[in-house]
Amino acid sequence: MKEFDTIAAVSTSLGEGGVSIIRVSGDNALPIVDSIFKAKNGKSLEGMKTYTMRYGFIVDKDSREVIDEVIVSYMRGPRSFTAEDTVEINCHGGVVATNRVLEETIKAGARLAERGEFTKRAFLNGRIDLSQAEAVIDIINAKTELSMKSAIKQSEGIISKEISAIRAELLGLIAHIEATVDYPEDDLEEVTSKKANIQLSTFIDEIDRLLSTAEEGKMLKEGIKVVIVGKPNVGKSSLLNALLQEKRAIVTDVPGTTRDVIEEYINIDGIPIKLIDTAGIRETENIVEKIGVEKSKEKIEEADLIILMLDLSRKLDREDEEIIEYIRDKKYIVLLNKKDLNRQMESKELSKLDSKYIIDISVKTGEGLDNIKNCIKQLFFKGEIKTEDIYVTNNRHKEALIRSKESLRAAIGVLENVEAIDLASIDIRNAWTALGEITGDTVEEDIIDKIFAEFCLGK
Amino acid sequence: MKEFDTIAAVSTSLGEGGVSIIRVSGDNALPIVDSIFKAKNGKSLEGMKTYTMRYGFIVDKDSREVIDEVIVSYMRGPRSFTAEDTVEINCHGGVVATNRVLEETIKAGARLAERGEFTKRAFLNGRIDLSQAEAVIDIINAKTELSMKSAIKQSEGIISKEISAIRAELLGLIAHIEATVDYPEDDLEEVTSKKANIQLSTFIDEIDRLLSTAEEGKMLKEGIKVVIVGKPNVGKSSLLNALLQEKRAIVTDVPGTTRDVIEEYINIDGIPIKLIDTAGIRETENIVEKIGVEKSKEKIEEADLIILMLDLSRKLDREDEEIIEYIRDKKYIVLLNKKDLNRQMESKELSKLDSKYIIDISVKTGEGLDNIKNCIKQLFFKGEIKTEDIYVTNNRHKEALIRSKESLRAAIGVLENVEAIDLASIDIRNAWTALGEITGDTVEEDIIDKIFAEFCLGK
Repeated sequence: MKEFDTIAAVSTSLGEGGVSIIRVSGDNALPIVDSIFKAKNGKSLEGMKTYTMRYGFIVDKDSREVIDEVIVSYMRGPRSFTAEDTVEINCHGGVVATNRVLEETIKAGARLAERGEFTKRAFLNGRIDLSQAEAVIDIINAKTELSMKSAIKQSEGIISKEISAIRAELLGLIAHIEATVDYPEDDLEEVTSKKANIQLSTFIDEIDRLLSTAEEGKMLKEGIKVVIVGKPNVGKSSLLNALLQEKRAIVTDVPGTTRDVIEEYINIDGIPIKLIDTAGIRETENIVEKIGVEKSKEKIEEADLIILMLDLSRKLDREDEEIIEYIRDKKYIVLLNKKDLNRQMESKELSKLDSKYIIDISVKTGEGLDNIKNCIKQLFFKGEIKTEDIYVTNNRHKEALIRSKESLRAAIGVLENVEAIDLASIDIRNAWTALGEITGDTVEEDIIDKIFAEFCLGK
Repeated sequence: MKEFDTIAAVSTSLGEGGVSIIRVSGDNALPIVDSIFKAKNGKSLEGMKTYTMRYGFIVDKDSREVIDEVIVSYMRGPRSFTAEDTVEINCHGGVVATNRVLEETIKAGARLAERGEFTKRAFLNGRIDLSQAEAVIDIINAKTELSMKSAIKQSEGIISKEISAIRAELLGLIAHIEATVDYPEDDLEEVTSKKANIQLSTFIDEIDRLLSTAEEGKMLKEGIKVVIVGKPNVGKSSLLNALLQEKRAIVTDVPGTTRDVIEEYINIDGIPIKLIDTAGIRETENIVEKIGVEKSKEKIEEADLIILMLDLSRKLDREDEEIIEYIRDKKYIVLLNKKDLNRQMESKELSKLDSKYIIDISVKTGEGLDNIKNCIKQLFFKGEIKTEDIYVTNNRHKEALIRSKESLRAAIGVLENVEAIDLASIDIRNAWTALGEITGDTVEEDIIDKIFAEFCLGK
């Protein structure tokens, strides 16, 4: 185990809750907390047994005034989350109490932990590999149960095991090739090349098998981004609310009410669908709305799916047509809303759009809403997604797999020219290195820093 | 200890955090968690020692599939928060993981806890009295360190001790009076009456001493509500942002941008100041703004202080005058903003207002902002507030003290008529009962329910 300084942070979500946890990790965790702890039974924390708790108070280091009533628990390294000595202080929830206790641990000698630093230590101390560390944040961010299940599988090392197996075999192959190069006999090289080529193809197949799960994996992890667009007052916010079965945005009859982009999640068969309601797309002199419109266009560019809403009770106008033109080449569903009113729109006006994805609805009566969900399912996934079969959920892993595959292909190309068998070993080693980035065995420090910077504080 | 069913809830704030706690309390807490727990070391939780922890997994009760990696801790009653057997499950933070684990405890036989039910049990089981239970939510809601300190004092029983002492003496007095009534001799009654009168006056003084701290106590607990009003575009949101030293609301040059009422806290010498920015007060045809304006008027009625913003660079108009008329009889500060621009407003226009509370400022340059804080201090409190001297922070307690005092006064009135000494004992008993409401000794069940309904879930 490496040695680090002692860090502290609030490990629970900050807000009004009953209890908060301040986690302190490092060689001095116990003495630091001991210096600001007054046990109910008067005993010091020194010699406290691992996996036990003590009831008492956190007191001001200097004035010894009681700050909060707490329960302190101790997990001696390496049997802790970070694999270091860890003390957790359960104090009263609420922003002030929590921050006050944290502040006192800092005064007592701990350093404020950086984002993801606890998990980073678990990785650096070798308790978990990099893909497992990344899964921690995926578990926390999971928007559906299925997403979480998939993240738990990652945290258990579902991808690591596969990667490690392939890497071990690659290393064996590299050793074999290098031995052949050191004792060059044409025959031997030829035999090795042929065998190696067969093996390399198998590895590529293996990697392809993993990669084939990346699309579903990405959906599970990130969800599907759906942007709702349409003229002001066509019913975008009402649709969002109907889908959420709960009112969130203010809905009125005044055009242009939705000033900010609103994001919410719904769950379709375990896939998180991120619904983004936007201010109406239209040219406007109004600065506030203009900010909204710019945000909308940005969101459309990032979207996996556009839901365009049109008003059946009116004829298409220039504004609608502009929006239609704008989304035509993207993945979209068109909703013809206000089915409950008199139809003024004519079908031929929509001839530019693929009719398979045009649905009549009435947000007001609820008619047709189920079709939207079915349509999204049809567009993105069919049948049940089994988390046991999902290996790749992380874009970083996907890219490393692709790079690894490319190196293996290059190696095959080289091996077909027998004279350059030593060159092939360079490519194979590159493939081995690329795979190692997934588990963190061969990853650069700045990439590690970048990964953990995306964590929340306190994890 | 009374017997209750076993309840469960998320005790940490729900959101994206590293760790969440699911608390399970009641006779079956340990067997319930045991039925969905798979220890890393394979052992069951049965016979687990109090104040120890176990590492393992929460699994689906039926499929035994792993739901989350957790640490389980056990506090055997009565040495726990609720004074009942309590198991806490530390699981991954994040909404889905947390809810999934909670759901499993419910499936395993726990009942979802009501708001404040854990604290209610601590009270019903006699571990803390009612005023201490109420302090728990005050600690959680505290907006400044000083507020929290004061709440901690309440949780330690600062008021309970005083109340209990007075009640004990009252009870002695009642006993004495009743003895006198049972063995009536005119002399004895007269002596008793005189003595009782002196004692009762002392109790009233005691209660007055407690009540004298109620105003500062209320400020500490609830803060000072400050509503910022003024015409659109006068700089209300900018002021709010300047005071918060951080941009929160969207600020543009378009009048009427602030659609919703925005509430934030600042801290002046430990007193939480709740700043409420409102939509411009003006008649409007616009429905959205109308909602905002109605909310504004409501907020003004509830406010402890109004900050009226006017624009120095313009003459007063009818709208400004209407607002001035509206706030004239309230506690207010007038800010003349845009000091950096050419002054168009004339002082005599403001003759209706108390000039002591008119401050020239420029939100843009920051000039004069400090004067606002000083002015608020001057209006509400002077010097340092010492939490050790604050006994009454709770309005319910204040009301009970006042009722108690009234009963004692009535008793004194009766005792001056010696013939009715037995009637006085009824008044004294009423005073005793009213004080008992504070500690919960004599409180009605529906009041208890009402108190805990204001708690957050999981506490």
